Amino acid sequence: MDFRLLNTDKKSAARTGEITTDHGKIETPIFMPVGTLGSVKGVHQRELKEDINAEIILGNTYHLYLRPGLEILEQAGGLHKFNAWDRPILTDSGGFQVFSLEENRKLTEEGAIFRSHIDGSKHMFTPENVMDIQRTIGADIIMAFDECPPGTATYKYAKNSLGLTQRWLERCVKQFDSTQPKYGYSQTLFPIVQGCVYKDLRIEAAEHAASLNREGYAIGGLAVGEPTQDMYDMIEVVNDVLPKDKPRYLMGVGTPVNILEAISRGVDMFDCVMPTRNGRNGMIFTSEGTINIKNKKWANDFSPLDPNGTSFVDSTYSKGYVRHLIHSGELLGGQICSIHNLAFYLWLVREARRHINEGTFADWKDMMTAKLSKRL
Amino acid sequence: MDFRLLNTDKKSAARTGEITTDHGKIETPIFMPVGTLGSVKGVHQRELKEDINAEIILGNTYHLYLRPGLEILEQAGGLHKFNAWDRPILTDSGGFQVFSLEENRKLTEEGAIFRSHIDGSKHMFTPENVMDIQRTIGADIIMAFDECPPGTATYKYAKNSLGLTQRWLERCVKQFDSTQPKYGYSQTLFPIVQGCVYKDLRIEAAEHAASLNREGYAIGGLAVGEPTQDMYDMIEVVNDVLPKDKPRYLMGVGTPVNILEAISRGVDMFDCVMPTRNGRNGMIFTSEGTINIKNKKWANDFSPLDPNGTSFVDSTYSKGYVRHLIHSGELLGGQICSIHNLAFYLWLVREARRHINEGTFADWKDMMTAKLSKRL
Repeated sequence: MDFRLLNTDKKSAARTGEITTDHGKIETPIFMPVGTLGSVKGVHQRELKEDINAEIILGNTYHLYLRPGLEILEQAGGLHKFNAWDRPILTDSGGFQVFSLEENRKLTEEGAIFRSHIDGSKHMFTPENVMDIQRTIGADIIMAFDECPPGTATYKYAKNSLGLTQRWLERCVKQFDSTQPKYGYSQTLFPIVQGCVYKDLRIEAAEHAASLNREGYAIGGLAVGEPTQDMYDMIEVVNDVLPKDKPRYLMGVGTPVNILEAISRGVDMFDCVMPTRNGRNGMIFTSEGTINIKNKKWANDFSPLDPNGTSFVDSTYSKGYVRHLIHSGELLGGQICSIHNLAFYLWLVREARRHINEGTFADWKDMMTAKLSKRL
Repeated sequence: MDFRLLNTDKKSAARTGEITTDHGKIETPIFMPVGTLGSVKGVHQRELKEDINAEIILGNTYHLYLRPGLEILEQAGGLHKFNAWDRPILTDSGGFQVFSLEENRKLTEEGAIFRSHIDGSKHMFTPENVMDIQRTIGADIIMAFDECPPGTATYKYAKNSLGLTQRWLERCVKQFDSTQPKYGYSQTLFPIVQGCVYKDLRIEAAEHAASLNREGYAIGGLAVGEPTQDMYDMIEVVNDVLPKDKPRYLMGVGTPVNILEAISRGVDMFDCVMPTRNGRNGMIFTSEGTINIKNKKWANDFSPLDPNGTSFVDSTYSKGYVRHLIHSGELLGGQICSIHNLAFYLWLVREARRHINEGTFADWKDMMTAKLSKRL
């Protein structure tokens, strides 16, 4: 993997760049649609490419390990072959999912023992086997196995947790560097910077991660219950430490406003289930603000779903029709809103890139933030 | 509406024809995807046109009357405008749905009083208001309001029921002929021939319907619990009576084999939820037989979903991937199988047309019937 920094904004830390992988290039800042089980829910691969313009998608180690399982993925020749997606893929390590199981997992120095949410079967993730699993899944960019404490964790908990995450990270790096990709293209490992909302812990974590000299870095443990301003502050703290010439990936964030604020603080990569999950529930993000399409006020609004939208759903379908579909529980409603929202997120980061390159990012961001915060 | 009979098979009653509506032409025999609530479940309108080659779709009066309701549909300018489908639409009358409510409906000479399956609210359908409702929905082809008795009804029940259906049909015709379409294009009313599995009742019903001299006729009350051979026999009986120069629509039928058998008995139009409903459950119809994609044997089969398939899903996705999606409850699995099955049904009727026109239908039908009956 290669990262080339292109332009940096004069009034903020925003920057544009280009990541090159064996499955193609990714222009940053980028948003990555989430395909937990190897499918972006409700969206065809063709739509991701042609209508949404997705450059890279996510998969999830925990979920793919349980279903379809490693044997199938290896026989298929990796996830790209399995799910017919020939552009880049990033896999999260499963750390976040395992720690979300709460009652059904136990942490030791060695790793995490957990029970499957599907059938209750017992499994263990260690830094080493999570590297091996991600070798088998075959994503272009893979994540270190970490502990993700809640945004409300005490300083003591966060400090101990970070210690474990750092020791695990070193084991991840060692395992990754001593193994080879399985399918003939290269993979790269991103450390995850934790440290909760504590500035000194975040600095320590970022310095430790940077010292390992990897090709990119992730910021984890944000948007997990802490105040939004704390999230923004931690992004600044971490990005001040991380090397400028490597991409920074903010995990699991967030609203369109969150994304613009993080871009202005030097983040390059994003993923979030919000465009699809909230979309299936009838929430539509537009350049003029957010629409809850279930509201009765849209029932007889036969104007296009989003006149400024970039995908076919925006001009094909009316607000009233989509309201009817979501209201009636018709599958197509969720499909339409998911495509719309993903296309909107990709439009947003594309516009951000353009404005950074043209030197107009700060003003554009202020104007957009005001509009995006509206409820229509 | 206009129907032109093109060719009739020499060895069977199969025929090809062309229906012309104000929303375009339909080549027969044709299969019509079911869009109960104004959406074919899980399938975009673009896919219906470009990938499935649907020439006409169905809507349902009962469901559309309840949601989005007549006020919305009228404000939208009818269902075509509302759901962005500019090709022909046919609406079922709601008779079948109302009689499926069982405990929640009461029949009188005047009409059917029923409670909504959504909120329990009380409504009444009469032959007159069902015509008015279908004027408001604005389908190109609309159905008479009938009683649909179960396939196991006694002769006495079936005879009384047919009497009611015939009196209702006359009221439907009177109401339809004394009202005008609302949106500037013409509509046509098809009577529904009932009579359960009783030959004399079916003949009486077909003669009565034919005497009303409409532009097309439907055969209802089949595939509702009677033996398959009885269904085939009743189709023959009815089509012997119905005028040759009008299209015949067999309602709610059926499997690919049912469709070929009915085509060979002179049926021109079909609808069924099977390709979408069974598709969402992982049943895939192919030219070589039926696949239950949930079976473990497909888990590591990475060959294309259907190498003979005509739509993009058949070559894009592998059996193993679709098995994984259906097995994991991923929405995309149902979408893929729905598109595949609908495209297969449309391929099947297109091939039937071709073979009828070329005089090779009977042999092709025998060969296909043997293959279609297989479980792969």
